[in-house]
Amino acid sequence: MAATSTEEASAYDRLLAKYKRVANIQNAAGLLSWDQQVIMPDEGTPARSQQMSTLSALSHELLTDDEFGDLLDEVEASDLSDEEADVVRELRRDYERAARVPSELVEQISAASSEAIPSWKEAKAEDDFSKFAPHLEKHVELKREYAEYIDPDRDAYEVLFEDYEPCLPLDQAEEILAEVREVLVPMIADIRESDVELAVDAFKGDYPADEQEELARDALSTLGYPWERGRLDTAPHPFSSGTQFDARVTTRYDESDPLGSLFSTIHEFGHALYTLGLPDEHYGTPLGESRNLSVHESQSRLWENHVGRSKSFWEHFMPTFSEHFPDIDATVEEAYEAANQVYEDNFIRVEADELTYHLHIVIRFELERALISGELDVEDVPEAWNDKYEEYLGIRPETDTEGCLQDIHWAYGNFGYFPTYSLGSIMAAQLFASASEDIDDLDEKIAAGEFADLREWLRENVHQRGRRYETNDLVKLATGDDFAADDFLDYVDAKYSALYNL
Amino acid sequence: MAATSTEEASAYDRLLAKYKRVANIQNAAGLLSWDQQVIMPDEGTPARSQQMSTLSALSHELLTDDEFGDLLDEVEASDLSDEEADVVRELRRDYERAARVPSELVEQISAASSEAIPSWKEAKAEDDFSKFAPHLEKHVELKREYAEYIDPDRDAYEVLFEDYEPCLPLDQAEEILAEVREVLVPMIADIRESDVELAVDAFKGDYPADEQEELARDALSTLGYPWERGRLDTAPHPFSSGTQFDARVTTRYDESDPLGSLFSTIHEFGHALYTLGLPDEHYGTPLGESRNLSVHESQSRLWENHVGRSKSFWEHFMPTFSEHFPDIDATVEEAYEAANQVYEDNFIRVEADELTYHLHIVIRFELERALISGELDVEDVPEAWNDKYEEYLGIRPETDTEGCLQDIHWAYGNFGYFPTYSLGSIMAAQLFASASEDIDDLDEKIAAGEFADLREWLRENVHQRGRRYETNDLVKLATGDDFAADDFLDYVDAKYSALYNL
Repeated sequence: MAATSTEEASAYDRLLAKYKRVANIQNAAGLLSWDQQVIMPDEGTPARSQQMSTLSALSHELLTDDEFGDLLDEVEASDLSDEEADVVRELRRDYERAARVPSELVEQISAASSEAIPSWKEAKAEDDFSKFAPHLEKHVELKREYAEYIDPDRDAYEVLFEDYEPCLPLDQAEEILAEVREVLVPMIADIRESDVELAVDAFKGDYPADEQEELARDALSTLGYPWERGRLDTAPHPFSSGTQFDARVTTRYDESDPLGSLFSTIHEFGHALYTLGLPDEHYGTPLGESRNLSVHESQSRLWENHVGRSKSFWEHFMPTFSEHFPDIDATVEEAYEAANQVYEDNFIRVEADELTYHLHIVIRFELERALISGELDVEDVPEAWNDKYEEYLGIRPETDTEGCLQDIHWAYGNFGYFPTYSLGSIMAAQLFASASEDIDDLDEKIAAGEFADLREWLRENVHQRGRRYETNDLVKLATGDDFAADDFLDYVDAKYSALYNL
Repeated sequence: MAATSTEEASAYDRLLAKYKRVANIQNAAGLLSWDQQVIMPDEGTPARSQQMSTLSALSHELLTDDEFGDLLDEVEASDLSDEEADVVRELRRDYERAARVPSELVEQISAASSEAIPSWKEAKAEDDFSKFAPHLEKHVELKREYAEYIDPDRDAYEVLFEDYEPCLPLDQAEEILAEVREVLVPMIADIRESDVELAVDAFKGDYPADEQEELARDALSTLGYPWERGRLDTAPHPFSSGTQFDARVTTRYDESDPLGSLFSTIHEFGHALYTLGLPDEHYGTPLGESRNLSVHESQSRLWENHVGRSKSFWEHFMPTFSEHFPDIDATVEEAYEAANQVYEDNFIRVEADELTYHLHIVIRFELERALISGELDVEDVPEAWNDKYEEYLGIRPETDTEGCLQDIHWAYGNFGYFPTYSLGSIMAAQLFASASEDIDDLDEKIAAGEFADLREWLRENVHQRGRRYETNDLVKLATGDDFAADDFLDYVDAKYSALYNL
């Protein structure tokens, strides 16, 4: 028995070593992508594309080669500790998703995206959905085929959703989103009828990008961003990426909207902090990797919404803000109101407030499900889109540019990605509610600029766990309950009732 | 015959496609290394090292796998055009050098470097050669073994030299360096006895790094650096790297030595310009890659010495310099003298002037040859080093810190690298002499800030040729003669006779 154990342990180690190579290639590709989005010279694209495509093909080949599959079989048949079994569950899932899809189809999807993206840009610029429609049609077909290869017996959208959120049942996600929609639609209607006037102009002014960058650096330092493992740069579409040893934040500066830039920075800080909290010693294995998009988004939204948009945060941060922009003399209450206003007639998801945001998501979720199932034809998307905006948000876009052409996701063939944004926000509320119970005087600590306890709570309860637990188990370990919308609904009810005197 | 041809062409294409993957991995690794040296956060090293080591192992595996070898055999046995035959010659050389050395030995050398480098740093800091000696001994042994695997029938140093300069006979290199030494030793002695006093203090002053950076950007723009395919950043040890689509320059700023920084920038510009001149359409194949270290150094030295240190350049550039540093009012003649002074008692290679530099190199070349052949024992290196400095340069280092411990190369086990620095300078003189014949009024053009003809001459005669020709053939195609020291010796004789009234 002892000899057998040793042999088995060694197969497990060999499997992990093989996976580490895949992870290293993917992390190298991540750096190449960061460079391309942030600092690469304009004409670097032809070489960079080839480098990325070689790395992507190699990581796919290494993950799906026979040796990887055989080692997996061997390891699964052996006695494993709980932790090892959890790791192997993750590797099996990665392997199956990669191995079942023929490389030709992956290349077809990639080629379809390369063609779709410029057409989408043109369609959006010219408000002409017909230029994008055939590409969307193609993506729908290819992605149905893709889902069929992975699992012909299940709903295709469910399979696609798992590319982004692999271990949360779609039924549960759907219930949560429906519950949120049912509460938010009437709440937003009430807010629109409220005659409370918030201090929406408290930050009106001119904010030079240089000074905003200094403000962003101060905000990151205040929240506890470890500069020895990170950087702040600008990018047209802010993102964060990297590993636990080097997780970088990007942001952008709108010279008339300092709050937008600041919240974007804090949002990306939340993502980076998650990455940085993954255990160093498990770098390159599932125990040292982040869970998935919903959990990642829970971390960014927790810092953006529950910290950054809180009154306590502004009690601490308003003096710092005023140091950088002495002309602004908003009170804490005014800052809080400006940061939490619900917009009357915004059609654009990425410019939405914290509340209406989720209806933008629900609309996309419902439409893309219907597209994949065949209930909705591509040609009917613009009208269906506008109808839903009218139904849920009481506004109707007048153009497709500010309607169904606004987001790039479908041009990449990404169906199932959108819901993770809302699921993350909802999870953030649940995690923050638990953290507030566990940490004495969390609100006072935030008001005093003390974020260490919150960082540590998240590190212990979420970050350090890597991909060890599936989503519900991770949420349950952290909060004591399955993932649900209750805390989120309590949070928005309390917050917006007070703000708008509902 | 036609069918056979098609089949052969297809094997050639498959071989190139395989090589392209290797090139893409190496270029990706190059970007990772650039990032690490220039902007990576301090604590990013553990993950970055693993990523680099995975990419390095993968490129080695892909280059040496049986399929690559079989394809090479097949392609070599087929009818090839001249160009194809040249490409295959390069691939065969790469393959043999990689395939003949066991991976274990490559790993041992890499591990030996990892141990040697901190010991070398300590030895240098504490002026204690004994701390580095055992590591140097180990490297000598491992590199002899390495050379033995590649070719047991040839002189080990010759084999090692080919890692850096694979297609110039060592005998020829040795003759050239000996000839240079024989002329330079007495010339430098004469200069030391000359009573001419150059304007060595013309640039004495205080030069803030920010303003030096603006100057460096102006210099690069003046010389014709295409910013849409490049960047300028700072790095502790300046270098340039990249591809024809994205070749980046780094430099550093010494606030008391603006010329040092400026020439370092121009030097790296020369390297980058070579890379940028490689044909776009051959990216990722030997026709789209640079020849080797000597040829690369010829490009950096041509711009640094023959352009940057010329009187004509200062006629054009002194007004730009004065714009940035209005307190300095050196004349063109004074600037020229300051840029070309021969130092009396400098022991440090990287701080050497254009002339004495080559004796620093000759000393290292002679010592490392003797080390590898066994004529010199490691323990005797410090004394042999100091003796040679006394013999060739008339100065004797008082410490090993400013003697045999000053350079990092041997701590990496790099034997055969040093001579390429001088060979490059000597080649620069030969290329510049030919360019001066081919381009009407080159000197006047430089004085007028017109560098397009020179860039184009280098592009056509050197850059666009990639690795198509071996070193001598490349030099002959560009200049009409084999690579030799004559033009270099004429150049230094004319320049320094005039400067020092010899």
